[in-house]
Amino acid sequence: MTTLNSSDLVRVDGRSVSDLRPVTIERGWSDQAEGSALISFGRTKVLCTASFTNGVPRWMAGKGKGWVTAEYSMLPRSTNSRMDRESVKGKIGGRTHEISRLIGRSLRAVVDMKALGENTIVIDCDVLQADGGTRTAAITGAYVALADALEWGRGKKFLAQKAQPLIDSVAAVSVGIIDGEPMLDLAYTEDVRAETDMNVVVTGRGLFVEVQGTAEAAPFDRRELDALLDLAVGGAATLTALQTAALATSLEAARA
Amino acid sequence: MTTLNSSDLVRVDGRSVSDLRPVTIERGWSDQAEGSALISFGRTKVLCTASFTNGVPRWMAGKGKGWVTAEYSMLPRSTNSRMDRESVKGKIGGRTHEISRLIGRSLRAVVDMKALGENTIVIDCDVLQADGGTRTAAITGAYVALADALEWGRGKKFLAQKAQPLIDSVAAVSVGIIDGEPMLDLAYTEDVRAETDMNVVVTGRGLFVEVQGTAEAAPFDRRELDALLDLAVGGAATLTALQTAALATSLEAARA
Amino acid sequence: MTTLNSSDLVRVDGRSVSDLRPVTIERGWSDQAEGSALISFGRTKVLCTASFTNGVPRWMAGKGKGWVTAEYSMLPRSTNSRMDRESVKGKIGGRTHEISRLIGRSLRAVVDMKALGENTIVIDCDVLQADGGTRTAAITGAYVALADALEWGRGKKFLAQKAQPLIDSVAAVSVGIIDGEPMLDLAYTEDVRAETDMNVVVTGRGLFVEVQGTAEAAPFDRRELDALLDLAVGGAATLTALQTAALATSLEAARA
Amino acid sequence: MTTLNSSDLVRVDGRSVSDLRPVTIERGWSDQAEGSALISFGRTKVLCTASFTNGVPRWMAGKGKGWVTAEYSMLPRSTNSRMDRESVKGKIGGRTHEISRLIGRSLRAVVDMKALGENTIVIDCDVLQADGGTRTAAITGAYVALADALEWGRGKKFLAQKAQPLIDSVAAVSVGIIDGEPMLDLAYTEDVRAETDMNVVVTGRGLFVEVQGTAEAAPFDRRELDALLDLAVGGAATLTALQTAALATSLEAARA
Amino acid sequence: MTTLNSSDLVRVDGRSVSDLRPVTIERGWSDQAEGSALISFGRTKVLCTASFTNGVPRWMAGKGKGWVTAEYSMLPRSTNSRMDRESVKGKIGGRTHEISRLIGRSLRAVVDMKALGENTIVIDCDVLQADGGTRTAAITGAYVALADALEWGRGKKFLAQKAQPLIDSVAAVSVGIIDGEPMLDLAYTEDVRAETDMNVVVTGRGLFVEVQGTAEAAPFDRRELDALLDLAVGGAATLTALQTAALATSLEAARA
Amino acid sequence: MTTLNSSDLVRVDGRSVSDLRPVTIERGWSDQAEGSALISFGRTKVLCTASFTNGVPRWMAGKGKGWVTAEYSMLPRSTNSRMDRESVKGKIGGRTHEISRLIGRSLRAVVDMKALGENTIVIDCDVLQADGGTRTAAITGAYVALADALEWGRGKKFLAQKAQPLIDSVAAVSVGIIDGEPMLDLAYTEDVRAETDMNVVVTGRGLFVEVQGTAEAAPFDRRELDALLDLAVGGAATLTALQTAALATSLEAARA
Repeated sequence: MTTLNSSDLVRVDGRSVSDLRPVTIERGWSDQAEGSALISFGRTKVLCTASFTNGVPRWMAGKGKGWVTAEYSMLPRSTNSRMDRESVKGKIGGRTHEISRLIGRSLRAVVDMKALGENTIVIDCDVLQADGGTRTAAITGAYVALADALEWGRGKKFLAQKAQPLIDSVAAVSVGIIDGEPMLDLAYTEDVRAETDMNVVVTGRGLFVEVQGTAEAAPFDRRELDALLDLAVGGAATLTALQTAALATSLEAARA
Repeated sequence: MTTLNSSDLVRVDGRSVSDLRPVTIERGWSDQAEGSALISFGRTKVLCTASFTNGVPRWMAGKGKGWVTAEYSMLPRSTNSRMDRESVKGKIGGRTHEISRLIGRSLRAVVDMKALGENTIVIDCDVLQADGGTRTAAITGAYVALADALEWGRGKKFLAQKAQPLIDSVAAVSVGIIDGEPMLDLAYTEDVRAETDMNVVVTGRGLFVEVQGTAEAAPFDRRELDALLDLAVGGAATLTALQTAALATSLEAARA
Repeated sequence: MTTLNSSDLVRVDGRSVSDLRPVTIERGWSDQAEGSALISFGRTKVLCTASFTNGVPRWMAGKGKGWVTAEYSMLPRSTNSRMDRESVKGKIGGRTHEISRLIGRSLRAVVDMKALGENTIVIDCDVLQADGGTRTAAITGAYVALADALEWGRGKKFLAQKAQPLIDSVAAVSVGIIDGEPMLDLAYTEDVRAETDMNVVVTGRGLFVEVQGTAEAAPFDRRELDALLDLAVGGAATLTALQTAALATSLEAARA
Repeated sequence: MTTLNSSDLVRVDGRSVSDLRPVTIERGWSDQAEGSALISFGRTKVLCTASFTNGVPRWMAGKGKGWVTAEYSMLPRSTNSRMDRESVKGKIGGRTHEISRLIGRSLRAVVDMKALGENTIVIDCDVLQADGGTRTAAITGAYVALADALEWGRGKKFLAQKAQPLIDSVAAVSVGIIDGEPMLDLAYTEDVRAETDMNVVVTGRGLFVEVQGTAEAAPFDRRELDALLDLAVGGAATLTALQTAALATSLEAARA
Repeated sequence: MTTLNSSDLVRVDGRSVSDLRPVTIERGWSDQAEGSALISFGRTKVLCTASFTNGVPRWMAGKGKGWVTAEYSMLPRSTNSRMDRESVKGKIGGRTHEISRLIGRSLRAVVDMKALGENTIVIDCDVLQADGGTRTAAITGAYVALADALEWGRGKKFLAQKAQPLIDSVAAVSVGIIDGEPMLDLAYTEDVRAETDMNVVVTGRGLFVEVQGTAEAAPFDRRELDALLDLAVGGAATLTALQTAALATSLEAARA
Repeated sequence: MTTLNSSDLVRVDGRSVSDLRPVTIERGWSDQAEGSALISFGRTKVLCTASFTNGVPRWMAGKGKGWVTAEYSMLPRSTNSRMDRESVKGKIGGRTHEISRLIGRSLRAVVDMKALGENTIVIDCDVLQADGGTRTAAITGAYVALADALEWGRGKKFLAQKAQPLIDSVAAVSVGIIDGEPMLDLAYTEDVRAETDMNVVVTGRGLFVEVQGTAEAAPFDRRELDALLDLAVGGAATLTALQTAALATSLEAARA
C-alpha cells in the first residue's frame, strides 16, 4: 500500500513531496530584543526574539555556566478559529509546555554553556499566524535570533572576545505520511490528514537533536521511518542554508 | 509655570507638541481572522484581529442583540526588558485587565447591538512592539479590524443586508503634560517623564467615549485639562482620517 | 436635548442634582489597624483600614522613600444579588484590579514619598454594603485612615517629628448624565441608567488627580464634560470639609 | 497539676473562667441580604449574611430538597498584623476551608432539607475584626441570619406556609485549658496560650453537633475533656438565649 | 432508641462493634524515603513516607527547633468512582487541607521540637485504595514512618545521639453511631450510614490529641459521646501495640 | 568513538546492554478500578488503573465512538529527594503534561474507537517509586489495565459481545547511549549519564507508535539511531510476552 518513491507526486499547493514551503527570515525584526527573526514557512509566521541577560538565576551562579530557555505561545487568532488565551484560562496547556521544552532543548544542543559563561538567554517564539509546522519554524527562526543575541553579548563584553558558544547551527522540519506517501513540511490541512507525523531537529552538520515520530492514525514500520528521516534530513539542509544566508550580512544591512 | 501655547516646541524625535508619530495601518494583515489590522504609531506595533462568531453566549441568547468584547496583551519581549508571560504567571495583571476593558467599551460605544443581531465579535490586540501609546494604537487599529469583520459577516448573511451596526467610528490618542507643556501622542520616553497622562477616545463625529486623565506626578488644573482635550480632539481627527483612508479601498486591494 | 441647567430637578431620594447623599465617617472604627474609617455615602458602606509598616519591600530599600498601595474588595453579599468570592474563583476580576489601582494612585498623589521615609502603608477598602459610588467612598474614607496611620507612625517615631508626608488631602465623587441631566453622586439605580458616568478625584486644593469619564450609553460632548466637572468639583469640596471635620478632633474623642 | 474547680479565678479582662465575653447581635444589619446579623463576642466582630435563592443547583434538582452552605473569610486587617488576601494569593488556605465547612455542617444539622424544599441558602461570614472565637461567633450569628432568611422565603411563598425547616437552633463556643485551668470563650491572647483548645457546637436542646478538641501544646485526659464539655454546654445555653431574644421581636423593630 | 450495650452485634464483614478491621503495616516499603510504611485498615491502603531534611525553612532558622508537617492526598481511582485530580483542578479541596493539617498536628503532638533540632520532616500520606478511615490509617502509619526517619537522622548524626524527639507514640481510629449503635473503625459503607462520626487521635499513653466528632445526620448526646470515646480508646490501644510490634525488629529485618 | 557492538558489556546491576530489568506485573491490584496493574521495572513501580465509564463527554456524544485518555503523576517521595506536589503548586508541570499525553496517544493507537462504542476509559498512572523508565513502565502496565477494563465493560454489556476494541497490544521501553554504547531500559543513574535518550512505543506486531529520541548531551547520527531502535524493538517484544502472560489467566486467578 505504501509506495514511498513517487517524489514527483504533486500536492495541493503545487509542491512535490520533498519540497519545503517558501521560507522567509526577517532578521532583526524587533527594535527591542537583542536578537530577533520573523520567520515564515508558507503562511505560518512566528516572531522569535532572544533576550540576553548578563548573569544567571541564583541557583546556577558561581559555576561559570550559562543557560538558554524558551517559551512558545500562539496568539489566540493565529489559527482558523479563535482559541482562548492561556493567560485568561490561568494555566498553560500540555501542548504549549511540550513545544516550549522542545525548543529549549533543541537550542541548548548547539550551545556550549561554558563558553556562554554566566549569561542567560530567553527565547520567545510567538506564533502570529499558524498553518502547520509552527514548532519547526520556531526552532529554525530561534536559532537566528540566538546567534544575533550572542553577538550582541560579545559587543557588550558579556562574552569573551574569542568565546565560541555556538558549536553548531540547528533547524527543524516536519515530515509525515499521507495516504501512504512520506512528505516534507506539512501544511495544516496535510497535518490533520497524516497517518504519521514526525518532527525532526537536525544540526548544521546533519546530526539529530530530536526525532519525535507519532502514529496519529496508524502505527508505522521501519521502512516508513527511514523514508521520513531521509526527507527530513534533506529539508533541514535547505533550512540550514537559509539560516546561513540570513546571518551572512551585517545585522544593520539585514534590517535596512 | 505652565505655558500651554508653545506648539512650535520641538521634541526629541523632531515632532512639534501637536504632531502624531507616523501612523501606518496594514489592513487585512491576517489570513485567518475575519478582520485584522497591523497598526503602528511610530515604533509601537499592535496586531488587531476581529473574530466574528454567529451566535451569542447562552445567557444572552434570544434577545436579538450581539456582543463585542476585547482582549489586550503584550508579547513578553515587546518591551525594552523582557516581562514574564501572564500565562506563565497564571494570572492576568491589573493593567492588562484595565486596558482590555477599555478597548471593549470603546468599540461597543460605536456599535448598535440590535443591528449587530445575535453575533459575537472578539477583538484581540496583541502588542508586538511597545513604545508608548499601545492602548490608543490598539483601539484605533481594532476599529479597522471590526469594520472588516462586520463586512465579512454581511457577506456570509449573518448580518442583514441593510443592517448598520456601526453608528460611528472610533479612535484614541494619548496626551500628556511634560515640563508643563501639553503634548500629543507620547512615546515611551516621554510617557515616563509626564506629570499628567491622559488617554482620550473620540468618535469620528468628535464626541468623547472615554476621558482617562491621571496625575502621575502632579495634580492638574482645569486649564491644563482643557489644553489636553484640545490636543486630543485634534489628534483623533487625524486618526479618523487615516482609518477612513484604510477602509476606503476594497479589502483585496488593501492586502495586495 | 440636553438641558444642563435644571439643578432644581428632584431625584428619587429627594436630592437635587447637585446634592451628595448623606455622608458619615466613623473614624477609628477598627481596634486593630493603625488608621481606619467606616465611611458611608447613603447606603454604600466601606470599611477603610490603613496598615503602617516600618520598612519597605526589598527592591525599594535604601532609597529613602516610602510606598502607599491599596486593595479594594466587595463582600459577596454587599450587593443586591450575591457575587462569588474572588478568593473562591481563584482570581481577581478586572474591575477589582482597576479600582484598587485607582485608589492607590489617588492616595499617592497627595503623599510626599521622601517625607514618608522608608515606611509602607497598605490601604484596604472593603465594601460592606454597595449602592453605587463604592470607589469614590473608598478613596474619601481611605484618606482619613491614611492620615491617622501617618500620625500613628509619627507617634512611634517611624516618621520624623516635622515630616509632612501629606501634601494635600484627597476626595472623590461620581457624576453622571441621566436623561440628559448631569447629576452628582449617583446611587446604584441611577448609575445603571446613566448615559455617561464619571469618577473624579480632587485634592483639597481643588486640583484634579483622576478624571475617568466613560460613555456607557452615548458619547458625550465638551459642554457635558464641563458640566460634569463643575458638579464634581463642588461635591469634592463638601467631602473635603467632612474629612477635615472628622480629623479635627483627637482620635480618642472620635472613637468615644 | 490541673485544678479544674477554681471557677472564681479571674481573667485579664475581669471575667471568671465560665463567663462569655459581652455578646451583641445586630440583627438585620444589611439592607441587601435576606437575613443578616453583625455579631460581636467582645472585640471579635463578624458580619453574617444569608442569601436565599429559590431553586437548587442542577445536580440536586428534582429531589424536593434544599441546600445550605457557608463561606468564611477574614478581612486582611481584621487581625493585629495584616494578612494577605486569599483572592490576591489566588487560593484559599486550609484554615479558611476548614472553618467554612464547619459552619456549613453546623447549620445543616438544624435544617430539615425536605421542609426547606428546593431552595438554596448561602451563608457568608466575614470577620471584620478578630480577637479569638471568630468561628464560634460566626456560627452563632449565622443562625440568626439563617432564621431571618427562611422567614423572608416564607413571605415570598418559596416556603410552604406551614413548613418548619428549622428543627432546632444552633450556637457555638470555644473552650480551652490555660495553665491547667479550663476556661470558656477564649480571647486571642488566651487562645495562643492554651494547652488545649476546643470548639463545641451545640443545639438549643443541648445536643452536640460538633466537638473539635485539639491538643495545641499537651495532650489532654478524659477528666479535662469532661470539664471542657461542661463549660461549653453552659456557654452555649447563654448564646441560645441571646439568639432567641434577638429573634423575638419583629425584624422591622430590630432594625429600627 | 439508642441501645449502647450490644457489643455482641455482628457487622456486614463479621466484626463485632468493638473490632478493628485487619491491620497490616509494611514498614520500610519505600526504597527512597528515610522512613515509610504501607498501612492497611481492611481494604484501605495508605502509603506513608517521611522525608528528613537537615535544616529548617529560613523563617525558622536559628531557634534550635525543628518542624514536622504533613500532606495527604488520594489517588484519583483510590475510590469506587474516579475523582478528578486536585493538580488538574489547580486547587486543593477543603477536605484534603483539613486532613493534611490534622495529620501534621497529630504528629507534632508527640515530637519535642527542641530535641529534633533544626531538622524538618515532611510526611506524605497517599491513599492508594480507600474504604473508610483513610485519615486514621494515615496517622497510624505516619507515626511508623516518622520513627524510622528519626532513626535515619540519628544515624546520619543530624540528631544528637541521646536526643529523644519522640515523647510518645500516636495512633488514630474512627468511631461512629449507626442505627443508634456505637461502632469502631467504620468501613466506607458504614461511614455513609453513620448518624455521627468521630475521629479520635490518641497517644500511646492514652491521652487525647484530637477529638473530632461530627453529627452527620443527628446531633448526639453526652452518653453517646462517652460511648464513642470508650470504643476509640480501646481501638487506639490495639493500634499502638501493632505500631510497637512493627518497630520492634530492625528495619533491615522488616524489609526482608 | 562509538563501538555499537559490545552487547556483552556488563552494567552496574549486572545486566548486559540488551537486558531489561526484572519486570513484574501485579494484575488486578486495585479492588476499586475496572482494570488495574501494579507494574515494576526494577525498582520503578507504577500503579496503573483503568476507569471505565459508559458514555462519552457531551461534545463527543452521538458519533458512536469512544475515548481513551490518560493522566500520569509521581508521588512526591517516589524520587530520591522529595518533590513538591503539583496540586500544592496549583499547576501541572510540562513534563507531567508531556507524559500524560504520550500515554494517552500510545493506548489510543491500539484501540478501535468505533468498536469501543460510546464509552470512556481514563487511565491513571501513578508512580509510587521512581528509578528511571517511569513512562515506559506506565504505558506497559496501562495496557494490561485497559485490557481488563474492556473485559469488564463487555461483562456489563457496555460493549457488544463480539466487539474487538483492541486491535493490537502496546508496550514501551527506553533506550539510550552511554559512553558511546546503546543500552536498553535505563535505570535512573544511567539515564542521567546518557548522551542520548529515546523512548520507543511499539505494538505487539512490532510497529512503531512513538519514537521520541532526544540528544541530552550530544547529537546522534543515523547509525546510532538504528542501533537504538533495534534494541528497543527487542525489549518491547519481551514486554509484549510478559503482558500476554499476565493476561492469559483469569483475572480471579491473577488476583489470588
